Amino acid sequence: MVTRTVDLRSDTVTRPTEAMRAAMANAEVDDDVLGFDPTAHRFEAEMAKITGKEAALFVPSGTMGNLICVLVQCEVRGSEVILGDNSHINIYENGGISTIGSVHSRTVKNNSDGTMDIALIEAAIRDPEGKLYYPTTRLICLENTHANCGGRCISVEYTDRVGQLAKKHGLKLHIDGARIFNAATALGVPVHRLVQAADTVSVCLSKGLGAPVGSVIVGSKSFIAKAKILRKTLGGGMRQIGILCAAAYVALQENVGKLEGDHRKAKMFADGLNQIKGLRVDKASVETNIIFFDTLEGSNIMVDKLCKILEEHGVLMMPVSSSSIRLVLHHQISDSDVQYAISCIQQAVLQLQIENIGK
Amino acid sequence: MVTRTVDLRSDTVTRPTEAMRAAMANAEVDDDVLGFDPTAHRFEAEMAKITGKEAALFVPSGTMGNLICVLVQCEVRGSEVILGDNSHINIYENGGISTIGSVHSRTVKNNSDGTMDIALIEAAIRDPEGKLYYPTTRLICLENTHANCGGRCISVEYTDRVGQLAKKHGLKLHIDGARIFNAATALGVPVHRLVQAADTVSVCLSKGLGAPVGSVIVGSKSFIAKAKILRKTLGGGMRQIGILCAAAYVALQENVGKLEGDHRKAKMFADGLNQIKGLRVDKASVETNIIFFDTLEGSNIMVDKLCKILEEHGVLMMPVSSSSIRLVLHHQISDSDVQYAISCIQQAVLQLQIENIGK
Amino acid sequence: MVTRTVDLRSDTVTRPTEAMRAAMANAEVDDDVLGFDPTAHRFEAEMAKITGKEAALFVPSGTMGNLICVLVQCEVRGSEVILGDNSHINIYENGGISTIGSVHSRTVKNNSDGTMDIALIEAAIRDPEGKLYYPTTRLICLENTHANCGGRCISVEYTDRVGQLAKKHGLKLHIDGARIFNAATALGVPVHRLVQAADTVSVCLSKGLGAPVGSVIVGSKSFIAKAKILRKTLGGGMRQIGILCAAAYVALQENVGKLEGDHRKAKMFADGLNQIKGLRVDKASVETNIIFFDTLEGSNIMVDKLCKILEEHGVLMMPVSSSSIRLVLHHQISDSDVQYAISCIQQAVLQLQIENIGK
Amino acid sequence: MVTRTVDLRSDTVTRPTEAMRAAMANAEVDDDVLGFDPTAHRFEAEMAKITGKEAALFVPSGTMGNLICVLVQCEVRGSEVILGDNSHINIYENGGISTIGSVHSRTVKNNSDGTMDIALIEAAIRDPEGKLYYPTTRLICLENTHANCGGRCISVEYTDRVGQLAKKHGLKLHIDGARIFNAATALGVPVHRLVQAADTVSVCLSKGLGAPVGSVIVGSKSFIAKAKILRKTLGGGMRQIGILCAAAYVALQENVGKLEGDHRKAKMFADGLNQIKGLRVDKASVETNIIFFDTLEGSNIMVDKLCKILEEHGVLMMPVSSSSIRLVLHHQISDSDVQYAISCIQQAVLQLQIENIGK
Repeated sequence: MVTRTVDLRSDTVTRPTEAMRAAMANAEVDDDVLGFDPTAHRFEAEMAKITGKEAALFVPSGTMGNLICVLVQCEVRGSEVILGDNSHINIYENGGISTIGSVHSRTVKNNSDGTMDIALIEAAIRDPEGKLYYPTTRLICLENTHANCGGRCISVEYTDRVGQLAKKHGLKLHIDGARIFNAATALGVPVHRLVQAADTVSVCLSKGLGAPVGSVIVGSKSFIAKAKILRKTLGGGMRQIGILCAAAYVALQENVGKLEGDHRKAKMFADGLNQIKGLRVDKASVETNIIFFDTLEGSNIMVDKLCKILEEHGVLMMPVSSSSIRLVLHHQISDSDVQYAISCIQQAVLQLQIENIGK
Repeated sequence: MVTRTVDLRSDTVTRPTEAMRAAMANAEVDDDVLGFDPTAHRFEAEMAKITGKEAALFVPSGTMGNLICVLVQCEVRGSEVILGDNSHINIYENGGISTIGSVHSRTVKNNSDGTMDIALIEAAIRDPEGKLYYPTTRLICLENTHANCGGRCISVEYTDRVGQLAKKHGLKLHIDGARIFNAATALGVPVHRLVQAADTVSVCLSKGLGAPVGSVIVGSKSFIAKAKILRKTLGGGMRQIGILCAAAYVALQENVGKLEGDHRKAKMFADGLNQIKGLRVDKASVETNIIFFDTLEGSNIMVDKLCKILEEHGVLMMPVSSSSIRLVLHHQISDSDVQYAISCIQQAVLQLQIENIGK
Repeated sequence: MVTRTVDLRSDTVTRPTEAMRAAMANAEVDDDVLGFDPTAHRFEAEMAKITGKEAALFVPSGTMGNLICVLVQCEVRGSEVILGDNSHINIYENGGISTIGSVHSRTVKNNSDGTMDIALIEAAIRDPEGKLYYPTTRLICLENTHANCGGRCISVEYTDRVGQLAKKHGLKLHIDGARIFNAATALGVPVHRLVQAADTVSVCLSKGLGAPVGSVIVGSKSFIAKAKILRKTLGGGMRQIGILCAAAYVALQENVGKLEGDHRKAKMFADGLNQIKGLRVDKASVETNIIFFDTLEGSNIMVDKLCKILEEHGVLMMPVSSSSIRLVLHHQISDSDVQYAISCIQQAVLQLQIENIGK
Repeated sequence: MVTRTVDLRSDTVTRPTEAMRAAMANAEVDDDVLGFDPTAHRFEAEMAKITGKEAALFVPSGTMGNLICVLVQCEVRGSEVILGDNSHINIYENGGISTIGSVHSRTVKNNSDGTMDIALIEAAIRDPEGKLYYPTTRLICLENTHANCGGRCISVEYTDRVGQLAKKHGLKLHIDGARIFNAATALGVPVHRLVQAADTVSVCLSKGLGAPVGSVIVGSKSFIAKAKILRKTLGGGMRQIGILCAAAYVALQENVGKLEGDHRKAKMFADGLNQIKGLRVDKASVETNIIFFDTLEGSNIMVDKLCKILEEHGVLMMPVSSSSIRLVLHHQISDSDVQYAISCIQQAVLQLQIENIGK
């Protein structure tokens, strides 16, 4: 019987705190589709301020946030968006920008640090002279932190350079900032500076920040006006969302400051894993709250079996390939949870190795 | 200064009750995108039971509910849906089934009671022999109660006949049941009987039922499996939705029984309006909680001015044309509110008529 | 064995004449996708002149012509087009404007003369204030002559009024002028006057004009520039189309003048049908080259059987319902063919009636 | 004044021959949309036979051919297609599979020989287990010869292996065979063997084969039945196409046998270019009728200027980057034309180098 659960599958598994629950129970609300929810207004104003943009809009999910940002910037039929081949939008969002939005995607290779070579981005921009054959490039997307690249951060300098490239070619820049607060924390810069070059940003509230539901998108007032219409079209217009915004407001106050601790715990976890024979983490890649670790060739550790054994001890992890596992730290994982998880992993690896010797 | 508010614009303006707030504060939750939220599971099971379908899925809004139902049933490119020309999907959902879903719509005239002539529906079904020229009909949509037709109910008999027609032609039947509980209450039949002929139904939780956020769609297990994927694509997959489902669960227990009272108050309201000179309600059309009333020709009552004056007295109503206003009753409008609103309307009409005489 | 064929199914069945074949054999051509085909240029310039528009573009079919015109005018996601419920675009083009173009259609009832009531068109235009719920109306479509309304003509006056309405609301006007030369001939006005109010027109070359392949769309230079890109996207960019344009050029010279004769023959045909017991044509509705005739109730004439018998005599007609048949006249049907067809129909009707008596 | 033209921009510039013109002038035709054109039937049957597939369909262009093949195989919303990042579909077809067809593309790096690593293709196939996040992979596309990779051929062995991979994962295989006859000729295998593993193939008639207009798609009967509907939807259904099919039939007889000569001339051209100082061709990459040649760094040869000078001598070439030019050989370029063009290029290069010395 499992007596302790350490859920490392994602930071989306965070549960609302007591303060969030109290805030939800007491939130002043009204119909947000009609435009009257005061708590939503207050929260959106706060997010606009934090990100340094004119306006903000609460949306049900990060997927809808990205979808709206891409589709509004690519509102004219025949648009193309440039994005990383390993980006969340390209890999994990059902191809919605094409299958729902009819936007053509042009992928550029993501480096292991989440960036794309500026020269490759520029080469991917379509020559407007060739528009008889080409779709029209309208948008470049970055992701910060970059989930599939191990939660690594993209710097202010890089972001600014891509912003300049976009401007030079008359394009827009969107940042999938699902974990932008993690990036800002790790880089030691304010969020508004980090996304200064972006026209639009989506920010997730229910990952590291720990709110139960929702994301926010930010941009210019005219962008948000269009985004509100598209949110309604997609079915993301909701009624008394002050409930959810109240929790998200608490999340900002309670949990942004805890992200640094999450990153520290991730590094501690990485060190622990590196001391287990047969496993390996590239410590340098652990910049925020995500860890990808590998089983070494010849170690005979089956990733699926390892996860199964650990589940029996309440340690939940997500396999990402036959030799690689992803862990995500968050504010509801304590130092003691980390120690417990490492020791469980150590034992499980040992158990597997002994079983293998027996064969 | 407004000291009392009687918000009759819609039943979407209902605020969560104390019991709902308590339920939200105490809800057991988990990550619903990963499929683990126990409160969502419990609520969806309850909705499946009430509607007599195999499975249910919580969605952020009625618009998304309808969008998913239409798009899943029309998943093959080249599909056409038959729906009422006055239906909510055709008029108020941004044309999303086409602009987002690439489905062609074929509208049939809605009668004033919300039905469409069966013969006209049948005539609108495309002959599969002509598919070189025609899109493929795949779905018929009904709406019950029918919002734009004054909240009137569609009978079991009619629904069953459309269901038989659909079956005969190998089509699916979807019911936009945003206010299906109102219809079932007014008709005195259980919800599951009323939607028995339908393959899919969308049910709104944040209208008369008074939950803060959300709708539910129901159908077969295989339908819901596809709906879940499309919900994710559209950005309607949310994390700890047990919060919202807990409130919706309370809504079912608290407010379904109150709908009868809403309907009684609507009739009372209609009687009151009919005693005001210059206004007219077709009382027979007030079957549930919605009233459309008209200003009589020659009465010189400007709808916009009337709404403006009433707003100053805290009575909020929604103009729908230059001579017509919509009112919606709900559980947070008391008998006394109805009396107050009628008396305010009477005074405002008088005031307008005196002003007009002065001209 | 059939010794004589009178093909009345459509005017699309016309075969290229000797002069057209000679023109195709001798056409000066180049790569039109690269923009160099001189015969295409010459033909497009001529069509622009005839229709009084800035520019023209050859397209493979009328369906592509209409599709491009609607999609270019509705290039922004979330667009709606107003069109007749009985129009060719709504009924016979696979719903392509939605299933391929993601445009939402809003149909208005077609009167029997092919018009729509101006007041109904205006009522169908979406209030921009409601754009949170509504798609954006961008285009009104007319059809002249109106195929499904019996080839009836829409007048200059009516067209101008719809054009004024469009302008007033900032909308564009498209005319599906597949048979606009028939309309201009019947009305006795030049084509350019008849389409003066329209922003775009599609004109079919392979119906009454008798060219083997193609349609032309006309409009402003900036419209045609966008249309050319979309033609390429849809796969309608073709190489040495001077071949086809040369034939179409001959069609303009040879056959426009013959349309009046087609209309005369249609009237003659209608008179002949009206003398056959059991059949009926509304002679007043025969304004151009199309005839719809009905079998009278109680006449016991099965439309399918009638067409079958006639086929054995080489007379080809198209049933459009269980009691209605469509005939289309064109320059390759002679007066003698008309007489022959009428006499075949007379005999066939007789034969069917005798058979029925026998039952 | 230009007295001689050697048009090397593309093999699409080929003009119809006398035999083709005669065939067009004499073609037996009927309405192909109605399904009756005998010359189209005969030609399509021949193409089905040559490619070893059940059925064939004439389409206006290669772009439409590819679009139809991708869209029919991806007819269910939420589909993804795997294709080369340098493929014609990805680069030169306006992104139509997404912007018109709502299909999500997943690109895999093209090797310089036009192939993609099999392991990379397999890695790009989406795990059906992840369909809550992933689109559904349905199709793999190859291109043979591969235009952007210098007209290089893909072998039977490679094609078969990709076919096996597709089968293993329940996917379809499409070959963009715009120049499949060139590939078959260069590889010395019959076309039907080369495309044996493919479910669908598009073949261009107006490139090296020299027909004025059109492409053909081939596949199973059930595929072609769907393709015919989609061709109509896109506006590619044309009337008396026997005209065009007659020319294409002649193209098969006249020009397939000449492709070997085109390849020989391309190699001769490459040798000539390699003897010009400052230019370079990778001779090994010249497998068919396409040559990409580069200006060497430090040679100071401006590509734009070079093409301009040559145009004055009637030698037309297509710059593809600031240091690279594409040439395409075809049956209307003689050995003498090749010699003339090489000598013009030599002189132009000299002229540019002298000018540069002067600076």
